[in-house]
Amino acid sequence: MVQVNEAETIFVGSKPLINYVSGIVMQFNTSPEVIIKSRGKFTAKAIDVVELAKKKFKEELTPKSIEIGSEQFQTKEGKKVNVSTLKIVLKKV
Amino acid sequence: MVQVNEAETIFVGSKPLINYVSGIVMQFNTSPEVIIKSRGKFTAKAIDVVELAKKKFKEELTPKSIEIGSEQFQTKEGKKVNVSTLKIVLKKV
Repeated sequence: MVQVNEAETIFVGSKPLINYVSGIVMQFNTSPEVIIKSRGKFTAKAIDVVELAKKKFKEELTPKSIEIGSEQFQTKEGKKVNVSTLKIVLKKV
Repeated sequence: MVQVNEAETIFVGSKPLINYVSGIVMQFNTSPEVIIKSRGKFTAKAIDVVELAKKKFKEELTPKSIEIGSEQFQTKEGKKVNVSTLKIVLKKV
């Protein structure tokens, strides 16, 4: 449903919100922590995903850490652009 | 240029990025910390503002805390919707 790599990281992109929330729910079945990453305009969506997941878990989730940063990104035309990044580590309360 | 209230809070909205970055630069002249708040789609922009401010300050800025949350918001039609919120407290390194 959503891409999950070895380090239990969920990358928030263009799929529907609920896909990522389901991904978080599934990850918590096998892991005490879930990492949510996003970049560019999807950083706003990642916050929506976390807030929705908190509602689904009836507030039993809390961010262990929140980090922002920026990454250089090469477009198809070979142009280098900077994008902002967001990383949220979620844990159960 | 940008709205700054008594608590040195800068609200990131629809103005150009550079306006908010200038607001941060000015605030640091009179305050050791600056609070950046945004909601909804502007949360992604607030991260861009902070990353750009870090570049202007040659990385001498760092987030002291980052908080996410959600707020209920009433539309003109009286409909209640939830929006995600982001609060970043910046300090000089």
